[in-house]
Amino acid sequence: MRSVVDTPISRDGRSIIIAMDHGLERGPIVFEDNPERADPSAVFDIATHDAVTGLAVHQGVAETYYPSYDDSVNLVAKLNGKTSMVMGDRYSPPIWSVESAAELGADAIGYTVYTGSNREADMFSEFAAAREDARDADLPVVLWSYPRGQGVNDHNAPDTVAYAARIGLELGADMAKIKYPGTREGVEWAVRVAGELPVLMSGGASVSEEAFLRDVATFMAGGGKGLTVGRNIWQRANPTATLDKLERLVFEDATVEDVL
Amino acid sequence: MRSVVDTPISRDGRSIIIAMDHGLERGPIVFEDNPERADPSAVFDIATHDAVTGLAVHQGVAETYYPSYDDSVNLVAKLNGKTSMVMGDRYSPPIWSVESAAELGADAIGYTVYTGSNREADMFSEFAAAREDARDADLPVVLWSYPRGQGVNDHNAPDTVAYAARIGLELGADMAKIKYPGTREGVEWAVRVAGELPVLMSGGASVSEEAFLRDVATFMAGGGKGLTVGRNIWQRANPTATLDKLERLVFEDATVEDVL
Amino acid sequence: MRSVVDTPISRDGRSIIIAMDHGLERGPIVFEDNPERADPSAVFDIATHDAVTGLAVHQGVAETYYPSYDDSVNLVAKLNGKTSMVMGDRYSPPIWSVESAAELGADAIGYTVYTGSNREADMFSEFAAAREDARDADLPVVLWSYPRGQGVNDHNAPDTVAYAARIGLELGADMAKIKYPGTREGVEWAVRVAGELPVLMSGGASVSEEAFLRDVATFMAGGGKGLTVGRNIWQRANPTATLDKLERLVFEDATVEDVL
Amino acid sequence: MRSVVDTPISRDGRSIIIAMDHGLERGPIVFEDNPERADPSAVFDIATHDAVTGLAVHQGVAETYYPSYDDSVNLVAKLNGKTSMVMGDRYSPPIWSVESAAELGADAIGYTVYTGSNREADMFSEFAAAREDARDADLPVVLWSYPRGQGVNDHNAPDTVAYAARIGLELGADMAKIKYPGTREGVEWAVRVAGELPVLMSGGASVSEEAFLRDVATFMAGGGKGLTVGRNIWQRANPTATLDKLERLVFEDATVEDVL
Amino acid sequence: MRSVVDTPISRDGRSIIIAMDHGLERGPIVFEDNPERADPSAVFDIATHDAVTGLAVHQGVAETYYPSYDDSVNLVAKLNGKTSMVMGDRYSPPIWSVESAAELGADAIGYTVYTGSNREADMFSEFAAAREDARDADLPVVLWSYPRGQGVNDHNAPDTVAYAARIGLELGADMAKIKYPGTREGVEWAVRVAGELPVLMSGGASVSEEAFLRDVATFMAGGGKGLTVGRNIWQRANPTATLDKLERLVFEDATVEDVL
Repeated sequence: MRSVVDTPISRDGRSIIIAMDHGLERGPIVFEDNPERADPSAVFDIATHDAVTGLAVHQGVAETYYPSYDDSVNLVAKLNGKTSMVMGDRYSPPIWSVESAAELGADAIGYTVYTGSNREADMFSEFAAAREDARDADLPVVLWSYPRGQGVNDHNAPDTVAYAARIGLELGADMAKIKYPGTREGVEWAVRVAGELPVLMSGGASVSEEAFLRDVATFMAGGGKGLTVGRNIWQRANPTATLDKLERLVFEDATVEDVL
Repeated sequence: MRSVVDTPISRDGRSIIIAMDHGLERGPIVFEDNPERADPSAVFDIATHDAVTGLAVHQGVAETYYPSYDDSVNLVAKLNGKTSMVMGDRYSPPIWSVESAAELGADAIGYTVYTGSNREADMFSEFAAAREDARDADLPVVLWSYPRGQGVNDHNAPDTVAYAARIGLELGADMAKIKYPGTREGVEWAVRVAGELPVLMSGGASVSEEAFLRDVATFMAGGGKGLTVGRNIWQRANPTATLDKLERLVFEDATVEDVL
Repeated sequence: MRSVVDTPISRDGRSIIIAMDHGLERGPIVFEDNPERADPSAVFDIATHDAVTGLAVHQGVAETYYPSYDDSVNLVAKLNGKTSMVMGDRYSPPIWSVESAAELGADAIGYTVYTGSNREADMFSEFAAAREDARDADLPVVLWSYPRGQGVNDHNAPDTVAYAARIGLELGADMAKIKYPGTREGVEWAVRVAGELPVLMSGGASVSEEAFLRDVATFMAGGGKGLTVGRNIWQRANPTATLDKLERLVFEDATVEDVL
Repeated sequence: MRSVVDTPISRDGRSIIIAMDHGLERGPIVFEDNPERADPSAVFDIATHDAVTGLAVHQGVAETYYPSYDDSVNLVAKLNGKTSMVMGDRYSPPIWSVESAAELGADAIGYTVYTGSNREADMFSEFAAAREDARDADLPVVLWSYPRGQGVNDHNAPDTVAYAARIGLELGADMAKIKYPGTREGVEWAVRVAGELPVLMSGGASVSEEAFLRDVATFMAGGGKGLTVGRNIWQRANPTATLDKLERLVFEDATVEDVL
Repeated sequence: MRSVVDTPISRDGRSIIIAMDHGLERGPIVFEDNPERADPSAVFDIATHDAVTGLAVHQGVAETYYPSYDDSVNLVAKLNGKTSMVMGDRYSPPIWSVESAAELGADAIGYTVYTGSNREADMFSEFAAAREDARDADLPVVLWSYPRGQGVNDHNAPDTVAYAARIGLELGADMAKIKYPGTREGVEWAVRVAGELPVLMSGGASVSEEAFLRDVATFMAGGGKGLTVGRNIWQRANPTATLDKLERLVFEDATVEDVL
């Protein structure tokens, strides 16, 4: 890893990255309750919030919408992806090159690795190649570190989450996105075994705002450096209100009681 | 995506593309009721109709017949293909390079992706590579966006069609060909989740002219930008008559009652 | 395809190509009844007959024997091959490069594709690559178009043979070798759906000379452009006599009654 | 192989290499009894001990921590790796390039090959490629020679360990890490069949210090050239004390009785 | 093929090549009865015998020991290999490049192809690539032509051995190593179908010296051009004595009665 402190996707070493790769990863069903968010412009608008240090999208969305937001949004180019229709071993192939992302003006790259899948080896090799390209392009690398597969009983279990964090360090990511392991002790252990690597909390499926903010607060208290969040922002009626609260939790050391 | 408005395969943002990849994809049985259409020249002749913005064929057909029609037909180079004889996971390999298609004078490239197939990942990666080559050659990219596989119960279902449309946007196509989802609401949702990406209706198997035109009219009313049609044109006794009607539906905002 | 009329492997648009790839494809057992033909020189000698427009052999045989015959034989470089010992999905990998064949002085390339096999996709891609290389080297491409696999019940059935012929056109071969479909109607349909692509009859296993010549005559009457023949020539006691008759059938519009 | 005598990872032809690839290979659970060792700096500190001729870590750990230790630690760049979560055939893909490792200042490369696995062939080819790159970069190559798979009943059996040693010689490693085969005779046979190739003992899971030192002493007495050790060092409360003893055993021909 | 007559590995068109790839292919167990032969130097010494036209070893052994023997031994660089521990389809991957072998001073390359294996296609393609590289480096190619797999009942059967010989010719080897087919007639047929390609007898497992020499004599009488021998030389107490006899059989047309 290299320090992300001096990169656009981090502010004082902390980050709030919005992810909107769900159109590909989960399909338009994610927009059903809030159809206006099916328009990527709506999510780019949300991402102009001061608290947001980056927006992670796939190639087509970036190419189409990012040029109108290049002054107000930091682009995290999500290089690999898959749909929810595909069965079999969990695997996410590279579908965007670092070179092309850099040309578009990306500020960082994002890459998912499903460790433990029968195709772990392919993803390790492909991630390694993307990481080297990112080094050459001087772009930081955010790893979606997601254990999955026959040997993974519970991908939210503290041991699994800690393993995910350590994998980020070992594979040379500059930041790793991990699941919330359920407790502050779990977060602390994951943070500890990640060494100098900043870890971000994965937002996951939409829950009540309070529940979500409590998890974020615990994650920050345990040493986390922010979060990567999608549905818990753009599936809400008022994403700005939630981002205001996240800003205080992540960047201003507020407690959850302060913001609720 | 990039806007196709200024490319030959679109007129005022709308398109009627004739596809004749069926000789490879389905075999000569498709010509049995109208044997003269087995001669590609006959289909190239049809494609000289004013309403037609492009003709999609495979490499061998293009190389053999397109040079005689390069003034009167816009070539959509269909880069990948398979036969109906092959069993197993749905997969269509690249069999024509963008470079070679561009040399022949192609106006656009066409590419099929069977999302949901066990080989989705291969097709995603290969499509991404073709798309980058097409960018370099300054050619627009039309995606045949076809969900197929174990996880796809009904590839004409509105949710599946909407997913197919969104995939076109996420993968960076410039236009996507999707199935007709059965209702205007289905079309509207697919169009909405595709964002700025123009979607074209897939013609499908031959049906009565009226039934076909009603579907096209509904597709246009729902926000579609035209169609890619094969058998419903060149399997008919009088393709010109049908194209005359399609021209009014697609480019002149006529209703189906106007044209019948 | 490009016209083969002006290439050495065609005379006035018609061809008789001798194939001797059987040493690899079927093993030396094919030489048991006529052991002297195990010597490739003997088959090269046969191929010096005026009626023969080309001899198709694998790399090793070509490299060893062709230099002594480069004035009297046109070389069809058979680029891919397999043995009869291998089980599993029908697949023939590339084992000779166009570049190396061209250096040796080849007049054309030959390539087998087993459409319908579970490895159809690999063979399509590899054939496409070889075809592009052949274009660069200005060599015509002869496709051995052989449907095989789970989805192919009878590879001599007229529909299957017609499909094979069309595949030759769609994939951009300059000539296709297909099975004899059993009737003149079958030949006519295959010829029709192949468009401008010349189709050659596959010789197949040895049969009586009369039966063989009758098939050839019907094939020519149905619009075929000649044949690619192996065992029905070099497994015979007197190949020259048979070639004399084939010459009249293929190039001089003789009937089978004329030559018998 | 080339002689490692004149390289930093060997002293008078003998080596003590500390391995800390376990964060990736086995997960943070290896740090549970000694959580401070989860911090790679703690292990780099241990590796500054005079007896240590190299420290083997993966790319991310090297890139993050090695720059602070480049004067005091010799870096063995571990080029391939896997996690313990993955099921199926044992396989470790390349995830770091020799070129990138050399750029960081690596003194040697390390590579694991699971001979006998169904993916032996892939690992042989990939190791061969890495080895050629290492030759170009003038870096010695340490092979983790680990037989695994259906055909391997007991990877600690003397015959298997001897085979592992010979594989190191045959594949062109400059040093091979093998299991302790249980007896001095076993070590001698492995050393003999390795020819001029130096073999190092694999440390394995933590055991009592005395048991460990006895194995090392026997290994050295049998002709071994040192060891590669991980958990038996950094899982201990006092690694320095153990390293002091190892130094005497490995470099000063001390007996186990001398050091206990 | 190209003539090997003017290359170092042949004398007047005949060859005795010693193979010592068994350390990798079968493991050190082959050295158990004669442990001093585990030292590659001992086998290089044997190969300095005047009768020996080449020594075939893998990369690591060649790199380590050949430089001391480059004046007295001709190196056959064995480019591919596998161990006896691996299960599944018979396959031997390339683990040494022609370029690297040529740099070390190799006089020829050796390559094993397991025809009939489910991985025949991979080996055919990889052999073809190696052969082209060898042509560029002007090195003759010796094929270990070994039918194996589901479709091969008995790899010593005369038909199978003849097929193996023909494969050598068809694939463009310059020399092929085949099994002894049991009878002089079997040898004659294999030699005949190989055309101009010289065939060498594979030594196989150790048998009594007399039995071995009788096979060699029959092989030579049937038209063979020598042998590639390993265990029947270096597993013997007195390899020189056996080589003296082989020299007379192979190069001096002696009968087995002459030499016994």
